Amino acid sequence: MSLPPEFHEIAKRVNNWGRWGPDDEIGTLNHITGETVRQAAGHIRSGRRVPLALPLRQDGVQTGVIPGRVNPLHTMVQINQEIFGPGTVACSDDAVTFGLQAATHWDALTHVSHSGKIYNGRPAATITPHGGAEFSGIDKPGHVVSRGVLLDIARAKGLDRLEGGHAVTPEDLAEAEEFAGVTVRAGDIVLVRTGQMQVYLAGDKHGYGYPSPGLSVRTPEWFHARDVAAVANDTLTFEIFPPEIEDLWLPVHALDLVEMGMLQGQNWNLEDLSTACAEASRYAFLLSAMPEPFVGATGTPVAPVAIL
Amino acid sequence: MSLPPEFHEIAKRVNNWGRWGPDDEIGTLNHITGETVRQAAGHIRSGRRVPLALPLRQDGVQTGVIPGRVNPLHTMVQINQEIFGPGTVACSDDAVTFGLQAATHWDALTHVSHSGKIYNGRPAATITPHGGAEFSGIDKPGHVVSRGVLLDIARAKGLDRLEGGHAVTPEDLAEAEEFAGVTVRAGDIVLVRTGQMQVYLAGDKHGYGYPSPGLSVRTPEWFHARDVAAVANDTLTFEIFPPEIEDLWLPVHALDLVEMGMLQGQNWNLEDLSTACAEASRYAFLLSAMPEPFVGATGTPVAPVAIL
Amino acid sequence: MSLPPEFHEIAKRVNNWGRWGPDDEIGTLNHITGETVRQAAGHIRSGRRVPLALPLRQDGVQTGVIPGRVNPLHTMVQINQEIFGPGTVACSDDAVTFGLQAATHWDALTHVSHSGKIYNGRPAATITPHGGAEFSGIDKPGHVVSRGVLLDIARAKGLDRLEGGHAVTPEDLAEAEEFAGVTVRAGDIVLVRTGQMQVYLAGDKHGYGYPSPGLSVRTPEWFHARDVAAVANDTLTFEIFPPEIEDLWLPVHALDLVEMGMLQGQNWNLEDLSTACAEASRYAFLLSAMPEPFVGATGTPVAPVAIL
Amino acid sequence: MSLPPEFHEIAKRVNNWGRWGPDDEIGTLNHITGETVRQAAGHIRSGRRVPLALPLRQDGVQTGVIPGRVNPLHTMVQINQEIFGPGTVACSDDAVTFGLQAATHWDALTHVSHSGKIYNGRPAATITPHGGAEFSGIDKPGHVVSRGVLLDIARAKGLDRLEGGHAVTPEDLAEAEEFAGVTVRAGDIVLVRTGQMQVYLAGDKHGYGYPSPGLSVRTPEWFHARDVAAVANDTLTFEIFPPEIEDLWLPVHALDLVEMGMLQGQNWNLEDLSTACAEASRYAFLLSAMPEPFVGATGTPVAPVAIL
Repeated sequence: MSLPPEFHEIAKRVNNWGRWGPDDEIGTLNHITGETVRQAAGHIRSGRRVPLALPLRQDGVQTGVIPGRVNPLHTMVQINQEIFGPGTVACSDDAVTFGLQAATHWDALTHVSHSGKIYNGRPAATITPHGGAEFSGIDKPGHVVSRGVLLDIARAKGLDRLEGGHAVTPEDLAEAEEFAGVTVRAGDIVLVRTGQMQVYLAGDKHGYGYPSPGLSVRTPEWFHARDVAAVANDTLTFEIFPPEIEDLWLPVHALDLVEMGMLQGQNWNLEDLSTACAEASRYAFLLSAMPEPFVGATGTPVAPVAIL
Repeated sequence: MSLPPEFHEIAKRVNNWGRWGPDDEIGTLNHITGETVRQAAGHIRSGRRVPLALPLRQDGVQTGVIPGRVNPLHTMVQINQEIFGPGTVACSDDAVTFGLQAATHWDALTHVSHSGKIYNGRPAATITPHGGAEFSGIDKPGHVVSRGVLLDIARAKGLDRLEGGHAVTPEDLAEAEEFAGVTVRAGDIVLVRTGQMQVYLAGDKHGYGYPSPGLSVRTPEWFHARDVAAVANDTLTFEIFPPEIEDLWLPVHALDLVEMGMLQGQNWNLEDLSTACAEASRYAFLLSAMPEPFVGATGTPVAPVAIL
Repeated sequence: MSLPPEFHEIAKRVNNWGRWGPDDEIGTLNHITGETVRQAAGHIRSGRRVPLALPLRQDGVQTGVIPGRVNPLHTMVQINQEIFGPGTVACSDDAVTFGLQAATHWDALTHVSHSGKIYNGRPAATITPHGGAEFSGIDKPGHVVSRGVLLDIARAKGLDRLEGGHAVTPEDLAEAEEFAGVTVRAGDIVLVRTGQMQVYLAGDKHGYGYPSPGLSVRTPEWFHARDVAAVANDTLTFEIFPPEIEDLWLPVHALDLVEMGMLQGQNWNLEDLSTACAEASRYAFLLSAMPEPFVGATGTPVAPVAIL
Repeated sequence: MSLPPEFHEIAKRVNNWGRWGPDDEIGTLNHITGETVRQAAGHIRSGRRVPLALPLRQDGVQTGVIPGRVNPLHTMVQINQEIFGPGTVACSDDAVTFGLQAATHWDALTHVSHSGKIYNGRPAATITPHGGAEFSGIDKPGHVVSRGVLLDIARAKGLDRLEGGHAVTPEDLAEAEEFAGVTVRAGDIVLVRTGQMQVYLAGDKHGYGYPSPGLSVRTPEWFHARDVAAVANDTLTFEIFPPEIEDLWLPVHALDLVEMGMLQGQNWNLEDLSTACAEASRYAFLLSAMPEPFVGATGTPVAPVAIL
C-alpha cells in the first residue's frame, strides 16, 4: 500500500519544504512576526481570558485504543511533609505520568511522517528512542502566540454540533469566516469548532472519538493559501474520522505537519470560547498557546488562553 | 519546634483569609480583572515574545536532593509507526514522567501548609493521596494572564548576578522598580531577577541550588501592600537559601502561599527577558503563564511568555 | 456505616496480633521455617517448573475501574544505541510505569486497613505518601518460598470453572484437599483455583473482574486453623465479588491481611499448573514467589514458579 | 570504528546461533532440564533461603550517568481509602516508574546488539519502540530456576573484596570453583562474587560503579565450555570497567548475550549468600530467579532467592 495520487497532488500544492531555508524546524510559525502580535494585541478589548485546556486527569479523553497514549496518572509524592522537622513549614509535591498527546495538546511537526520523511524533507529516522525528534521537536517553536480566530462551524450553521460524519470543508471554513466577520490572514492561529467536545463533556468518551467530524483533506490548501500559522480544533482526531477516502488514513496530518509544516492542536475545549465570542460578537483575539518545551518530543500538553 | 513569633507577626499583616469569601481558592489572582489585562495589552509595542521556560529534559535542574521531585523522563512509545499498514502515514507518540515542581513551574497555593492549614484557613488534611488538593489545586486558577513587571535586581545594581547569600529585600525591590521606571500595582505579576539562573546555565546544578540568593522574609509585606497577583523568580528555592533566620525554613513560601494566597513561580529563566527589557528600556509587558490544569495538583510546569 | 458484628466475631477468632511479638511485620510467613522448605524440596520429582505470572503489558487485566491501578506502560529509552561511538556494542534499555497491584501480585499486609488499624494493631496512619508503609511493606518478607498446594476447586467439582457468583467455602476447600490427596499444614502456601482466569484469557476483561467467584468470608478461619502462610488465587478480587453479605465489602481482605497478617495473591494464572498437577497426580510442590522488594510498597508484582 | 579481531575470534568460539534451531529465543537456558532442577533440589539441606535483591527505592544504585535508567519512583495512589464508604475496609495502592535495568536485574539477550545483530543472528532492528524486543524479550524465558553455584572470588582469595581494577579471569573462576568444592556443570547458574557490593552498601554509589572489578573478556569461553545457563554478579557493569582492551567497550555483554545467548544478572547482593555458604561450607543450592515477564522488555528486575 502507498499513498494515493490525489494525496500527492495536494501535497505538491501545499508543500513548504525549503521555503524558510534548509535549516528551518518550525514551518508556518514563521508567518508570525512581531507585527502580527502587535496587531493582535489590538483585539484585546475587554481583557476577558478564556482558557481552552481540558482538565488533566486520569479520567481524560483517552480510552486505551491508542497504545501508550495514557491519560495522566497523578500521584502525590509528599503531602504536608515537615521536611525540616516537626512544627516546620510542610510541603506537598506531585509526580505525573502521561502521554504527551493524551489531552489538550499540540502535535509537533514530527508527530507524523510519510514515505520516510518529516517536515522540510528530513529523514523520519532522525526521530530516535534516545532523544526523540532531533529536528522539529516541540521544544523548537519557543513561542506560539498570535492572533487567534475562531471559525465556529457549528454556530455558523445554527447547529449545536456537527454530525459524526461531517467533513469540515473549505466552504464550511469560508462560511464561518463570513459569520465571524473576520478575514483570516497570514500568521493567524485558526480554531475550528465542530462542537464535538460536547460529546466528551456529556460523558461519552467513545462517541467523542468515533465517528468524529473533523477537517477535510481539502482544508490544507485553504490554510496554505492564507498562510495560517497553526490550526486547532475540538476533536480527538483533528480530521474527519473515519476518513473521507477509503484506506487513506490521516491525510490531513500528513499534509499539515509533514508537507506544510503547520502545528495542529487537538482536544481543545472551544465551548466557552464559542459563547464568549458570540456574546462579544468578536471572533478574533490574542491567543497564547505556549508548548511545554519537552526536548525532542513530538507533542505537548498545552494550556491555551484566548484574550478578548 | 514551632514557627517563631516574628513569623506570626508578619503572617497577621499579610493574611488574606476570607478576603474573597470563605469559598475562595485562588487568592491574589482575584486582583487580576479584565481591566488589568486590557491595560496590560497596551504594553505590547513591538510584539516581541520572550519565552521563560527551561527545556524539559532529564538533565534538568533537579539533583536528587528533594525526594520524588524527578526530572522529566521522556520516552517514545511509538516512532514512525505505520499503524494503518505498510506505506501509510506513520505516527510518533511520547510519554513522560516527572515531578510537577521539577522544572519551570508554579507552586499551587497548596504546595505548602503550616500549623495544619492551607490558604483560606482550610485544613491541610484536605490534600490526600487519592485526589491531591481538594481545594486550591493548580487546576483552579484557570487563567494566569496579566501585566508582568520585571524587577531586575541584578541589573539595577550593575551586577551580573547576586551573590549566593543575598536576600532580596523590599529596598532591593524598590530600587529595581525605580530602575524599571514602572510602578508595581494591583494585579501585576512580578518577575524578580537575581541572575542565579546563570549558574545553572553554566552547568553547575549544585551551585545553582545552594547557596542561593532569593526573596527575603520581609518581601511578602511589600507584595501585599501593592496587591500583587503572583511572583516568580529565577532560582530553585524562590526564597534565600539557607534562610535568613536560623531554623526558620521556607517562611516566604508559608507567607506567600498560605497566608496571602499568592502563586509563586520558580526556575524561570529571566536572562533573555532581562536583555529584551534593557534593549527596549521597558520593563512592563503582557505576561501569559497558564498553569497546566492537573486536577488536584500542588504545582505545574508552566511555559510563560512575556509579550513586549 | 461500620463493619457488622459477624465480621468482628470472625475477626476475633482469626486475629494474630501479638502472636509473633509486637515488632512483627510479616504475620503468617512466620509459619515458614527452614524445615518447611527442606521438606517442600522433597516434592520436587520431575523438576518441571510452571510459571504463574501473567505477561506484564499495557493490555493487562485492569480496565480503569480502580483509579490509579494502571496496566504497565512499557517504553524503550534506548534502542541499539552505540553509546561508546559508531561500530561499538549497542545497548537497549527500557522504563516502565504501572500499578503495583495491577497484574499478578502479592498484596502486602498493608494493602488494606480497617477501623484505623493495620496488621499487628499498628495505626493505619503509619502509611504515608512520603515513604509508603513504614511497617509491613512488601519489602519486609524478604523471601516467600515454601511448600505450595494447589486446591483446584473447579477440577475437584468436574467443572471448567466456577460460576461468577460462586463463593468458595471451607467445604469446597476440604473437597479439593481430598481430591488433591494432600493435607494442608503449617507454612503451606495455598493456591486456590476457580478457573476464572479463563475468562480473561478468552479476552473478556470486564467479565473476568465482575461478577467473580472467589473466597468466602468463612475461609479465613479454615486457613487460620491450618496455620497457612499465604493464599493466592486466579481472580481479580480474590474474594467473591460482589460480596456475600450486602454492604460488607472486602471482608476477606480485612480478615486475611489485617487480622491474620496473611499475604494474599491475585491474578495468578493457575491454568497450566492445573494441567501439570493433574498430569502428575500431585498437588504439592516447591513454590517460589519472591516479592520485588519495593520499599514501603503495599503490593508488588510477582513471578511465581511452582516446581514439581 | 568497529570491533577488533580479538573480539571476533572469541565470538566464533562461543557462538551458539542455530544451536537450538533458528526459532530459539532463550539460548543457554536450554541447558536447564527437568533433571537439572530435580538434582538441584538435592542441594536443599537446611531450607535456608537467602534473598539476593537490593531494595527497590529512589535512592538506588543509579547515579544518573546512564540516561533514562532511573531509580524507582514509588508513589502511593491511594492510602487507607474507604472506597465503599465511610467505615468500610480501606485500601492502599501504589504506582512505580523505573528503569528495568536500574536495580537487581536480568539483562535480556536483547539488552545489547552488535554489528546489527542480536542473539541467534536476528536483526537488531526487531527491537522497536512500539513493542520492544519482538524476539528474545525478557518475557520469553518463562522460568529461570536451576542449580546455583556461588563462585566467591573474593573469599577464595582471602579478600573482603576485589580491587576496582581487577578483571575476574578464568583462572580466578577455577580457583573459586576449587575453593567451593563444586564442579560447575551444564545448566548451572553461576553467581560470581567480587565483593564490590560492599562499596554501594557503604554509601559510595560512584565508587561502586567506577572503577569496578568484573568479568574478563576471557570468561565467556569458560562459561561456554561448561554449558552454563546464566551468570550474575554483584557489580553495576558486570564486566570489568573500564575495559581491559582500550576502546573495546562491553565485550563481555556482546559475547554473553549476543553470541552465546546467555542471560546476565547485575547488582545482585551476594554478601549474605557469601556468609551463608561459608557457614554451611556448601556453595551449591537451588536458585530461583524468575524474570518479571514484561512483554518485549530487554531487562527486568528480579528478586532471586538461593535455597540451601
